[in-house]
Order: sequence, then structure tokens, then C-alpha cells
Amino acid sequence: MVEVPESHPRKKSLLSRQKIVDATKNGLLADSAMIAHGRGEAFDYLLGEKTSNSARLAIKESASRLIESDNPVISVNGNTVVLAGKSLIRVAAVLNCPIEVNIYYRTEERMSKLNSFLEKQKEIVSQEKNPDNWIGDWNNAVQSVKILGKEGDGRIQGLEGPRSICSSQGIEKADVILVPLEDGDRCEALVNLGKQVLVVDLNPLSRTAKMATITVVDEISRAAELLLEYVINKEEKSAEWNNQGILNDALKIIAENSTD
Amino acid sequence: MVEVPESHPRKKSLLSRQKIVDATKNGLLADSAMIAHGRGEAFDYLLGEKTSNSARLAIKESASRLIESDNPVISVNGNTVVLAGKSLIRVAAVLNCPIEVNIYYRTEERMSKLNSFLEKQKEIVSQEKNPDNWIGDWNNAVQSVKILGKEGDGRIQGLEGPRSICSSQGIEKADVILVPLEDGDRCEALVNLGKQVLVVDLNPLSRTAKMATITVVDEISRAAELLLEYVINKEEKSAEWNNQGILNDALKIIAENSTD
Repeated sequence: MVEVPESHPRKKSLLSRQKIVDATKNGLLADSAMIAHGRGEAFDYLLGEKTSNSARLAIKESASRLIESDNPVISVNGNTVVLAGKSLIRVAAVLNCPIEVNIYYRTEERMSKLNSFLEKQKEIVSQEKNPDNWIGDWNNAVQSVKILGKEGDGRIQGLEGPRSICSSQGIEKADVILVPLEDGDRCEALVNLGKQVLVVDLNPLSRTAKMATITVVDEISRAAELLLEYVINKEEKSAEWNNQGILNDALKIIAENSTD
Repeated sequence: MVEVPESHPRKKSLLSRQKIVDATKNGLLADSAMIAHGRGEAFDYLLGEKTSNSARLAIKESASRLIESDNPVISVNGNTVVLAGKSLIRVAAVLNCPIEVNIYYRTEERMSKLNSFLEKQKEIVSQEKNPDNWIGDWNNAVQSVKILGKEGDGRIQGLEGPRSICSSQGIEKADVILVPLEDGDRCEALVNLGKQVLVVDLNPLSRTAKMATITVVDEISRAAELLLEYVINKEEKSAEWNNQGILNDALKIIAENSTD
């Protein structure tokens, strides 16, 4: 493929695209992963390819909910692993919580590949120096992050078939779930089970975005980096959370960027 | 892959997606084709997945320019062939003009596969009954449509490398070019050569959309079906064409659909 010059104004977006193309070739992603990525690109383009103030608020609020949770879990699909795997491992290490691989089109092959990919990323992240402002034994914290998903010994009540499969020690047990790029039905089922569902979704009009407890309308790799900062800074929960206000703000940005 | 139920509100969009996935597997499309399709899906979603009145005007104007042209050509890339190949063969048959396969990442294998794909579509279309309101020998009209591109014996002045390659009897010779899903640089080069460039692009903010003589902000398969109707009806050219007005209207629709 083409080299992206250092000066290209959309370098980050083009590199993310390449990661998705490569991962698809390596069998980590479903057929539709590239199409989903393209949809995300378009929304991110309309959002100005930057984290808005309201998205920042939603990331802070997500950090506080994850910190306060008794059993938090970070659920990841293929695209999330490829685009933000390392950052989310760092977040999990700080929170001391598991990561669960949970994919829409579940096949043993892809589950296994994504698991191995994350385990390799864990090795790399565990060798890094401590993140800014984090005190402790980083290597140990990262090595303690459990990668769940393959065992599939739990169920999401309210869903049928392969999509109901989850980990008993992950999503099934969790009270707060961070689920970037989730599908609408599953988001709804998790909310109906009384769980707090924190989603990262670039489309503020999607069913997932509307169903979630907190919606971060932002690109996952940018959001994950900020989330790490905020979980380390121990952000506090706001008195009242107006998720519709957050969605309206994202829609306003798209509308403004669509005005000539 | 999943079956799309007949009642699904976004059935057409999901079937188009499946066509792109299948064609990618069959080696007809470049790596990035699915991502481009996903971007298009997002913009179409924001446009309400229907042809706007201003897009309709742009398709009518395109029809009139193609009819008036001395040497029209329809340039197609992989996604266009897969999504709207048959419709554009019908348009070419009515206009008695060639279709040129012209792709961004040119490889002999893909050029050959796309050529064969179109030749097969031509066979199928030639067996159809006459389109509504069209009088003549349909089989003969369709069989006369030349599929150009493989020969690559022409050049687009102002471009370098593989992207400058075109057909001497197609794009090089043409005064009016319909180019769905074109890239910005090539669109600019063609305009600079004094050619009329009619593009179909779902992103009204793209460089292509801004550079084109006429921009149809619509999904290619919908636009191609309407174009057929309009070339048969012999639409007349408008006195003055305000392309910026068309783009502004599309942006207004996106902005309105982004307002809660």
C-alpha cells in the first residue's frame, strides 16, 4: 500500500485505516469490519477528527463510573483491539479489571487470533515505563489483566444464539461495561439487565448511542488515550448525567461542519 | 453471511454492502474498497438514503450534458461496476457511448476481472426487454457498448504514474465524462483539460464534489437508475448551472438530519 507522508493532514486517520486493512488480511476481523471502519471515518470527518468538549466530558464520566464500579469490564471487538488494544490494556491495568473479547460474528478462529493479539500487546505494554502520574508496579499491573472471552461460559439474558455468549467472569458479572463499537441489540439487553453501559460510537444517531448510559461520540483510539489519563487522575462522577445533551452536542457539531 | 429479511427498512443498503463484500472476496476490488463503501454508507445515512430534489436536478443536468456531448464516456471503478454496472451499461446503450474501466490502484488482474464482469453484465442486459419509453433494437444497442480500459493507450495530461493511464478512445478523447466515485486529483486534472466532469459522490464536502462540473450527491445505484430514465426522456440543459447551490443543498439536508 501507499506510504503516508509525515506531513499529511489526515495521517492518523490513514494509519488507522491501514491497521484495519492489514488486520483483515491477517484474519482478525470479520468481512464487514472495513465497512464499519469506513462509516466511522465519515462520521469522524464530519466531527472534525478531534475530540469535542462534550466527548471529553463523557470520557471523564466514563472514567468515574469505571473507577466506582465493583466489577468493571472492558468489552472489545476486532476493530477495537486493532485500533486501541494497547491503550485499553493500559486502562485495564490501572483499573485492575479484565478485558473481554466479544465479537458479533463469533468464530473460534477469530476469537483465538484476537486473544493472541491482545496477549502479545500485553507483553509489549508490560515492558513500558509507568504512565504519567501512575505510581506502582506497572509490569505486574499489566500482567494481571485477564483476557477473557474464549471460554464463553456466560450468557447475556435477553439475547438469543451466538450473540448471547459472553464470559461469566466478564460481561455476565459486570456492573459497568465499557463497550466501544457495540451493536444496538446487545447494548439494549445489557442496559435492561441493569448494567451501566458506556459506549464509544462515532454515530450519535445510532441505536447504541441512544440506548447507552454514557455515549462517547469519539474515535476509539483518541478516546482510549484520554480515558487512561482520566482513570489515573481519578475523575469524580457528576451529580447528574444528561446523555441526550451529549448526543445533541455531537449532532450540533456535525450540523455546523455541514454548513458551508 | 446473514440473510436480510424482506421487511428490513435498510434492505437495499445491506444488499449493496453484501455485493461489495462478495466482490472483494472475488478479487474485483482493492483493499480500500470496503472502507470507501462504509464512508459512503454513513453519508447516505445522513442524507436519509434517498435521492434529494437537488440530486435529481443534478442527474437531469448530467443526462442533458451527456446527450449533447460529441464524445461522452462513462468511467467506472470497481465499486461502481459492482453496485451499478448493469444500470450504467443501459445508460451507455441509450447514449451509444463507451464505458471505461479506470481504477485508482491499477493492477492487470483487477482490470481483467472488472472487464470480464462487465462483459458478462452486458450479456445479461442485452437479453432484457427494451427499457420503458426507449424504441429501437435493444440487443444491438447493448452489444455495441464498448468496454474500454485494459488497453491503457491514452494519458491524462497533468497526472503522473499509473493514475495518468486511460484509454485513448475513452477518457482521453471525451469532452464529457461521467465519473462516479472519482478521486480529487484526477477530477481536477480532467477539469483542467477543459472536459466536463460529472461526478456522483455522497460526500458534498469532498474535493471531487467541489471540483466537478456537476456533482450528483447520491448513492450510485439510485442515481444510475434515474439517469437512465432521464437520458431516455432527453432532458434539456438548464440555462445556467449553479453547482455550489447543489452542494449547499446536500449539506443542508445533512445538517437537518443531524438536528435532533
